[in-house]
Formats: sequence, structure tokens, C-alpha cells
Amino acid sequence: MGSFLIRNLKGLVQYAEGPQDLRKGKQMQTLPVLENAWLLIENGCFKAFGPEDGSAPERADEILDGSGRFAFPGWCDPHTHIVFAGSRETEFVDKIKGLSYEEIFQRGGGILNSARKLAETDESDLFDQAMRRLHGMMQLGTAAVEIKSGYGLSIESELKMLRVIKRMKEQVQIPIKATYLGAHALPQAYKDKRPEYIKLVCSIIPQLVAEGLADYIDVFCDKGFFTPEETAQILEAGAKHGLKAKIHANELDFSGGIQVGVAHDAVSVDHLEFTGPAEIESLLKSSTIPTLLPGTAFFLRIAYPPARKMIDAGLGVALATDFNPGSSPSGNYPFVLSLAALYLKMLPEEIFNAATLNASHAMEVNDTHGVIRIGAPADFFLTEKIPSLAFIPYAYGQSPVWKVWVKGHLI
Amino acid sequence: MGSFLIRNLKGLVQYAEGPQDLRKGKQMQTLPVLENAWLLIENGCFKAFGPEDGSAPERADEILDGSGRFAFPGWCDPHTHIVFAGSRETEFVDKIKGLSYEEIFQRGGGILNSARKLAETDESDLFDQAMRRLHGMMQLGTAAVEIKSGYGLSIESELKMLRVIKRMKEQVQIPIKATYLGAHALPQAYKDKRPEYIKLVCSIIPQLVAEGLADYIDVFCDKGFFTPEETAQILEAGAKHGLKAKIHANELDFSGGIQVGVAHDAVSVDHLEFTGPAEIESLLKSSTIPTLLPGTAFFLRIAYPPARKMIDAGLGVALATDFNPGSSPSGNYPFVLSLAALYLKMLPEEIFNAATLNASHAMEVNDTHGVIRIGAPADFFLTEKIPSLAFIPYAYGQSPVWKVWVKGHLI
Repeated sequence: MGSFLIRNLKGLVQYAEGPQDLRKGKQMQTLPVLENAWLLIENGCFKAFGPEDGSAPERADEILDGSGRFAFPGWCDPHTHIVFAGSRETEFVDKIKGLSYEEIFQRGGGILNSARKLAETDESDLFDQAMRRLHGMMQLGTAAVEIKSGYGLSIESELKMLRVIKRMKEQVQIPIKATYLGAHALPQAYKDKRPEYIKLVCSIIPQLVAEGLADYIDVFCDKGFFTPEETAQILEAGAKHGLKAKIHANELDFSGGIQVGVAHDAVSVDHLEFTGPAEIESLLKSSTIPTLLPGTAFFLRIAYPPARKMIDAGLGVALATDFNPGSSPSGNYPFVLSLAALYLKMLPEEIFNAATLNASHAMEVNDTHGVIRIGAPADFFLTEKIPSLAFIPYAYGQSPVWKVWVKGHLI
Repeated sequence: MGSFLIRNLKGLVQYAEGPQDLRKGKQMQTLPVLENAWLLIENGCFKAFGPEDGSAPERADEILDGSGRFAFPGWCDPHTHIVFAGSRETEFVDKIKGLSYEEIFQRGGGILNSARKLAETDESDLFDQAMRRLHGMMQLGTAAVEIKSGYGLSIESELKMLRVIKRMKEQVQIPIKATYLGAHALPQAYKDKRPEYIKLVCSIIPQLVAEGLADYIDVFCDKGFFTPEETAQILEAGAKHGLKAKIHANELDFSGGIQVGVAHDAVSVDHLEFTGPAEIESLLKSSTIPTLLPGTAFFLRIAYPPARKMIDAGLGVALATDFNPGSSPSGNYPFVLSLAALYLKMLPEEIFNAATLNASHAMEVNDTHGVIRIGAPADFFLTEKIPSLAFIPYAYGQSPVWKVWVKGHLI
């Protein structure tokens, strides 16, 4: 593959000499930026970097001028649902017309709509749709992505979703993590048989672990969905087969989801619109990462999670898109950064840590992603010529990304 | 230039046989869409269109397959401030840190910051910056744009801004309208000499009309800025020299701005976050177009204008970006459409009428823009392959635009 040198970078953002721990609290304001830098890529990996003080290599197969541009490690997106069939703009219009969630649900909308479409769509079509979404996200700088099942509401469809994710892992050069979300919502057929559904969800865990179909287990632990007790049951069944937890918690209420996630050593608890002192206390005593999805609050017009309180209390937060057809139909990671500044009151340095290093921890790809580090795969992007890093969240709706490389290849 | 035929379009949106009036109230729900259509462009203009029933011409110099795509007349953006020097992300960060507008202003921030930078920047640099912004907007489908002065706060700088806009008009193929906003804010030197400043603002009107530097006159009629009486004085001075009014009104309070705009036959009154029954009543009796800028409310986290009440009362609204460095640093028109759906509760048909036909009226380019009409310049775009028109506002943060043509040329 040869070598490729970028000269005169305005800044090399989030560079590191070795593996980096999650940044928490005040540490989130520390963003390493090497100004006026060069960066060498060789055989698809970061080979060397340094300041423009005469230390740059004299030759490379290709040399690019990075003047006015920042180099960033790709964003990590640790919470998405990008394997789905069709979009749900009809319900979106129904909501504008004033229909309630219940009315939409009764018309067969909501997650039932996605489940029905998913059942009708074959694996290859599902794969194509998800790949198109992923490519769009990659063009906006995303270089690692977690994908959940959960629109199946049946064993067969859940396995179909997970097989699509597995095929994506095989065909895409960036890391993908698969999460089994059998307990996304209770199928209508199980309305009066909750324990049976929990059992059913747990019953396929051995099979999907054996087939390498899941890295994590997830439950929608919230008001109207699954209780902390049901969540505990499912997380324990997953743990028995080596699946770590990453769960939906406290989007709709103080559901106990954060605490049950912490109690089961969840890698992350996600959403967290309803987070008070007890939840923050619980998280502070754990290694569970609070992962915030401000795109969902924006799209649903609900209150945003109290990011400021979390960080000020000493927590290290991550960001994600939650790309899904119902509550956040967008994979635009840079827009999430604008929302984090405007509506989570996060500072630019905190935002970039949450979007790279901390997000890489929230999906356990921090050995290779989230920082620019010698020896790691060269999954990164150069920004447009911009005046400062703060310009990225400030200039909302404008992609900061100029060109993207995956394993050293321009995409 | 020859001819260029698009076949099998999923829909030809906002087509018309002749000039169209502003759509008001219920009419805003009527969006003409010709399904399964062909569109012929010849010598840079729309030459013919029709349904795919065998009526398409058999030959053209170039034929393009439009399957799965919609053809749209370019968006009209009737309220922007894209001639400015530098960005203001430092203040953006200060606001996240909790500084008040007053504190930022006292540190030399706000409009004073823009005025200082503008004074220091030469015309050619200003022109280049504005052109880059305009090109970004055109790539997102904008095909007509109004641009205001107003960051001068001095005669010299105001004339500089207006000359830049004039140069843009000469060099760009899409329509640009220039608006003189001498009364954007009161310069500090005039703090105790308001009448003198009003006189100064009025004094250059003859010169700028003589030089062809302005199409409209604007005043920031709001709490803490200019009073309705001062606004009236300036609008009358403009009217004497043939300048119609397009004014900033009721963004910060029930300022009387809407009424004074109506009283002076303003083409449009813009912002309107503070609009009650009296303001709606006043607008209903006029031909003044209420123009809404939801990006500003999004960025400033203020209440959105009551679009639903306006439309339900029978008004015809237009949409615009308000692209400016302080309160809405984005020219992303498709994102404005998402905000209109989510936060103004406008239906997709209403949104597309507000963004094309009605917006063309709000900047008086409705003889050539805002609809796809035989003989008009072929300034239009094709969408990505999307399932429906409602998908455009639904899929927030995702550009619906595939390719853009200006006067029949792909840009």
C-alpha cells in the first residue's frame, strides 16, 4: 500500500502515545491537539506524527498539504439501529397533525410498523438499506458503529437482523459491534404473558452466541417497556453466555434502568433523559459509561439529558446518534455535536472527547479507535478549512468533513 | 446549449402553467406534484413537461433517468446576512459557559464583533467568504437569495457590504436581492444621539439607490433596537427613493414591528417569534408576507414563531435560513424544513410551498422562481432516491439533494 504523508496540519486532534482511559469530569476539558503537525500513514496504519519542526520524513509515496485543516480520529457511534426496513415518515406527519403516540400505535404504527416491514423484507434488501445508511455516516466521519437488533419482535426476525449485522461486519473495513435487543418492546401476542416473552428472549442467547451474532445484550428498561427486574433477568441470561450489557435506560422516566445497568456492570447505559442525583451517584461508583443521544430528544421534542450535571459530578459521557426510523432518523454525527453544544451545554473539548475517545470505550474499540495512535488503523478524516475546532459544533447543519480515510484508503 | 431531457421522474414538484399567487391558509396544503413525469430543458430554460404517457420528446442532446427522484424548483431564501467577516464561535463557547448576552456585548462581542471584523476586512476577502457560503447553499438546493447589509454600523462599511452584494449579483447566475439594513443596531457612539443615527442611516439612501446597491430597506424593529416610530421614519425615507420594505420584527418582544411593516406595505416582515391575535389580524388585512426563520430559534433556544396559528388563520408564510454569524450560522435550507415540521408543526405540503412559491414572493422573484414553469430559467434540483416527499423534513440532517442545475447547467 505504501506511505502517505500529510504536512502542515492546522492541528492533529486527539493524538496519543498509548492507550487512553476514559476521560471523566474535568478531564473531559482536556483535548490533546498537536498544532502545525505532520502525520504519516503506512500500510493502512498511523506510522508516525510530529510537529512541523523539520522532523517530518522527507519522502512518502504521496504527500498532501493539510494547511488549514484538522486531522481527527473517526467518530465512534456506540448506539444505533441502522438495520431497519423502510422509513416512518407517515407517522411523522401523523404526529404533526396532532395524533398521539397511542393513536399511531393503534393504527399499527410505531415499533410494530418497523417489525412488520422487517418481517416482509428479505435479508439482502435489509443489508443493502443498512449499508447505504452506513456509507452516508462514514462520509460524515464515523469510523466505528454499534448496531442493535430489536425490530424483530420474533425469534426469526431478530436472527435475520443479527445475520445482516454479521454480514456488514464481514464486508466493512471499520469496526462494527452487534447488540441483541430482543427486549425492545413487548409483542402484542405476549401482552398478558410477560414472563413467557422474557423466557423466549433469553432462550435464543446460546444459539446467537454460538453463531457469533452478538457482542452485547440490550433491554429497553423504561416505563411502559421492561422493568428493572425483567431487565436483570435478561442481563443475567446474557452474562452466563459472555454477553456484556449495553442498555436503554431512563428515556421516559426514572425507571431504575441506570441502577440495574450499573448492578450488572453494563458497558454503557444509554439515553438518560431522566437522571437525578441517585442515578449520578450510582454511575460514579461504577465503570458504566453514560451515553447520550441528543438527536432523539431533538426529534421527539422531549427534555435533553442533564449532561452538564453528569460531567460536573465527575462522570465521563459518550455521544451517539441513535439512528433509527422512529425517534431519530439521522446518522449525522456532526449534527449531534451541535446539539451537544446547544442543548447539553457541553464545551467543544468535552464534545470531541465524548465523540471519539469516550465513545470508543462505550463500544470497546478503544484499543484501535477513538485516538490517533501509532500502529492503529488509519481510520480518520481531515476537516474542511475551518477557523477553529469550536467552529464544528457552532456551524450547525454544515459538515466539517473534507475527506475520509479508512485503513489508509480514501473513501 | 442544446436540450436535456429527464425521464421517469417519481414526481415533478411545484409545477405550474402560469404565474402563481402566494398560497395562503388551507391553500398551503395544495402542492402540485406531477407523478411519473418527464421534464425537458432547452437553452437553459424549462421547455416542456408532462406525464410519461408517450408524450415525452423522442430525442434530446442528453437524456437522464430520473427514476425514484423528485424534481424541485430551487429553494428561495428570502432572508440572509451571508456577507460577513469571520465567524463568532468564541462567543458561542462563552454562551455555553453561561455568559449573558450583555457580558458578551461588553467584551466587544455580538454585532460589534462582526462590525469590527467587517471594517478590518477588504472587499475582495469579504466577497470570497460570501461566495463560499453561497456555493454551499446552492449545493443544498437554494436558487435565489436575499442578502442584507447591517454589519457595517458605519456608512463606509455599509457601502462596502452592499458593493460586495452587487458584485455577487453580477457574478452569480441565480437571482440575488440586496437589502439595506443600516438600522441593524445602534452604534455605541450614537448611544445618546438616536435621532442623529436615524438621520445618518437615511442620508445615504439616495446614493445607494443611484448606484443600484439596494432593492429593499430593512430595520431591526424590536425591543432594545429600533422603535416603530424610528422604523417608520426610515421606511418612509426608503419609500421616497423607491425602496420597498422587508423588516425584522417581533423576534424579542411584541415590538409593534409587524404593524409598522404592514402600515408601510412591507413585502415581508421576518422572525415573528412574538405574534399574537392583533399581529395576525394586521397581517390578514395586508399583502405583507410573514417570513419565519426557525434556525434562529433553534440556535438561540428561544420560542419558535406560532406558524400553526398564522396558517390556520389564513396567512401564507414563507421560510428562510437567516444565515448570519451570531444567531444562525447555517445556510442549510433542508434543515430549516425539518425544523418547520418538528417545531413549527407545518405539514410537508405547507413546508414546500413556504420554501418555494411563497418564499419567491417574499423576495419578489416569483416571475421566474419558486415554481417549475415553461420559459423560466432551469434552476432546479433532483432529489436523492427517496420514498416520499415527507421523507425530506423527516430525515433531518440528511441532504435530500442529488444534483443541482442553474440555468440548465449542472453545478
